[in-house]
Amino acid sequence: MAQKTWRIGVAGLGTVGAGLLTFLAERPDFAPAGGRATVTGVSARSRSRPRPFDISNLPWFDDPVALANSPETDVFVELIGGSDGPAKAAVEAALRAGKPVVTANKALIAEHGADLAALAEAKGAPLLFEAAVMGGTPAVKMLREAMVGDDVKSVAGILNGTCNYILTEMEATGRSFAEVLGEAQRLGYAEADPTMDVGGFDAAHKISILAALAFGCAPNYAAAEIEGIEGVDLLDIQLARDLGYRIKLVASADRSPDGVLVRVHPSLAPLAHPLAQAGGALNALFIEGTRIGRIFIQGPGAGSGPTAAAVAADIADVMTGAVRPVFQKPATDLKPFTPVDPSKSLGRAYLRLSVKDEPGVIAAVTETLGDAGVSIESFLQKPVEKADGVPIVLTTHAVAESVLKAAIERIAALPAVLDRPRLLRIARI
Amino acid sequence: MAQKTWRIGVAGLGTVGAGLLTFLAERPDFAPAGGRATVTGVSARSRSRPRPFDISNLPWFDDPVALANSPETDVFVELIGGSDGPAKAAVEAALRAGKPVVTANKALIAEHGADLAALAEAKGAPLLFEAAVMGGTPAVKMLREAMVGDDVKSVAGILNGTCNYILTEMEATGRSFAEVLGEAQRLGYAEADPTMDVGGFDAAHKISILAALAFGCAPNYAAAEIEGIEGVDLLDIQLARDLGYRIKLVASADRSPDGVLVRVHPSLAPLAHPLAQAGGALNALFIEGTRIGRIFIQGPGAGSGPTAAAVAADIADVMTGAVRPVFQKPATDLKPFTPVDPSKSLGRAYLRLSVKDEPGVIAAVTETLGDAGVSIESFLQKPVEKADGVPIVLTTHAVAESVLKAAIERIAALPAVLDRPRLLRIARI
Repeated sequence: MAQKTWRIGVAGLGTVGAGLLTFLAERPDFAPAGGRATVTGVSARSRSRPRPFDISNLPWFDDPVALANSPETDVFVELIGGSDGPAKAAVEAALRAGKPVVTANKALIAEHGADLAALAEAKGAPLLFEAAVMGGTPAVKMLREAMVGDDVKSVAGILNGTCNYILTEMEATGRSFAEVLGEAQRLGYAEADPTMDVGGFDAAHKISILAALAFGCAPNYAAAEIEGIEGVDLLDIQLARDLGYRIKLVASADRSPDGVLVRVHPSLAPLAHPLAQAGGALNALFIEGTRIGRIFIQGPGAGSGPTAAAVAADIADVMTGAVRPVFQKPATDLKPFTPVDPSKSLGRAYLRLSVKDEPGVIAAVTETLGDAGVSIESFLQKPVEKADGVPIVLTTHAVAESVLKAAIERIAALPAVLDRPRLLRIARI
Repeated sequence: MAQKTWRIGVAGLGTVGAGLLTFLAERPDFAPAGGRATVTGVSARSRSRPRPFDISNLPWFDDPVALANSPETDVFVELIGGSDGPAKAAVEAALRAGKPVVTANKALIAEHGADLAALAEAKGAPLLFEAAVMGGTPAVKMLREAMVGDDVKSVAGILNGTCNYILTEMEATGRSFAEVLGEAQRLGYAEADPTMDVGGFDAAHKISILAALAFGCAPNYAAAEIEGIEGVDLLDIQLARDLGYRIKLVASADRSPDGVLVRVHPSLAPLAHPLAQAGGALNALFIEGTRIGRIFIQGPGAGSGPTAAAVAADIADVMTGAVRPVFQKPATDLKPFTPVDPSKSLGRAYLRLSVKDEPGVIAAVTETLGDAGVSIESFLQKPVEKADGVPIVLTTHAVAESVLKAAIERIAALPAVLDRPRLLRIARI
């Protein structure tokens, strides 16, 4: 095992980049295969911004593409972020030059993964992105390498730490989504523009990548059905708890003979279930294979330390010289999966209604649901708390989404039903 | 990615071997890197034993060493088992010939891992053993590859499915260890000679391997402190539950400036803790790193399907051509870790005493503990159930093991204490 020196170019110097530079400066010989890693160039938007790591002695590149193309760069690390723009241009430049690329960029991989994989494999350059999903918890490596002797049927879990933190805090403190989000922004746990996180788009990027690895398809972010947590009401969190559930933003990808269904939405998980138990900023994932059975992994989903460690592990993998397809199959064989029509998917549901406090209302609601073919599993009416309506909640047995939605339209039209019914899914886990 | 054919020799045709042959016959092109796997030779103790897979068309070798040496064998898969004898001879022969070896043999790796790693690395032959620990749940890959950008402080978990099944059944059905073990043997979940499992030795093999991977040391099975579950009384399971705990066989490896402490013993885990929640034959593991934080993985720990899938994943890894040290460092740098004296280790404990039903006993016990420097955290006396003594249980605050053991001697000597006090540790998780 030769003591080769690998010259690393790092583009993007936020917290993860700074964590990586610190690590590589302290442990240039961290890779077990015996190579040394030395940073030979950096690039970021601002050279002068205060950083926890001194970059004044490192060669600076204004343009990440120039860093990728530099003859001093053997491995290009992309920590810029964003599905297009400089991140994509620089990654393409590095791959085109046959250089291994390590990235934490989930948007880039989810939206352009198949094209980048084709380029990487044509040039014989590894393209690794462990840090794009679940921080330092190796979900990507598990699906790409450890599950190849299995046929994965589904992956489902909590992939966005910000949403999980917000939902956990709402339940723990009884505060609203807006209040907790505001606090999370002040504490730096949520971005100034939180849309990517709370809208479910970040989780959708991640589950699209995992689906591609699990099922040997091209990532198909455009096919993901996405609902965020902005509409999760504190009342729903409390009522779900009364019914024995906790609300989580669950991202899932399920393979069936019809194709693949990729979804992100707030879902009820039974309180004793590992997904319900994963609180705060934790990420958690179930992988179900036909041979291996159900594997569960959980860990911190983000943060400078874990994410930088994942990037470092990818750099160590590059040094082993391993040749693997970027996803589960050679890029030339990758096809986008066939999306399954979600209206045909079967599942249990939680419905919250606000109804007039008058006789016969419950009979009307249950009769309407029965007529529409929806079977009720549990029912809860809480003492009146609001002047403008009584909340009632119910859970259904498994029902096709199209049947459920038609039933909801009929309930919404009942004179005694005051607001639009609130629908949440019960996680199929 | 060339369509090279890899000729696989499989020695040992129990359930895992049969599962592997079935899988490779169905999916010879399973490996993403593009090679084909074809079985070109098999070996086992008996050629004629009925098997779920027809081996009559496969070249047969009476001697696994001859199979390892055969010019028709590119990759040698060892599923014989046992730390010495034919398994070791055949693995050594294959490595000596520079052939990649994939094995599920935890005893072999735990007891001879350093020597085999030295041989493998000298010959440039991969030696992979994912299936040796946690079946299809990739604990080995995680520690060997995904954690290299971190410094692991501890690994701890449930690594023996048979023990976990027995403890789960004892609690669920209120039956004794002997009864549940007998049933597990009839169902084929436990061996005719269950010593390796219930004595904690199997878990000790596995945690010795994980410790080596986690800390970059040679496996040091001889240094493991081992206690099995034979002495776990149903009464302890029930009393622990009253105190909010569940008894699990926990295997742990902790790194400190003094060295490494590797232990296997029945331990109390809080009921809500993921280790307490892992029931039946599940395996579960916490990995704690200084950068990544705490990662938890859980999955089926054994069985033909998961274990064969792990072997297949290792074969796929061989096909990538990756060059890595067998453990966390090159074998030439591997040293056995310095074992930490367990008597110096700090921990909380559970003590059960059987005492005479007379005044002043509790005062005598608590005073004796206090004098010995052991601080009581909780105390429970249950209504009398036996004529020959009243059970009392208590938990302690963290105390050095040597102090605790001295205190136990003093309590055992009290006239009102009838049996030898029962000590169980509370897991440090």
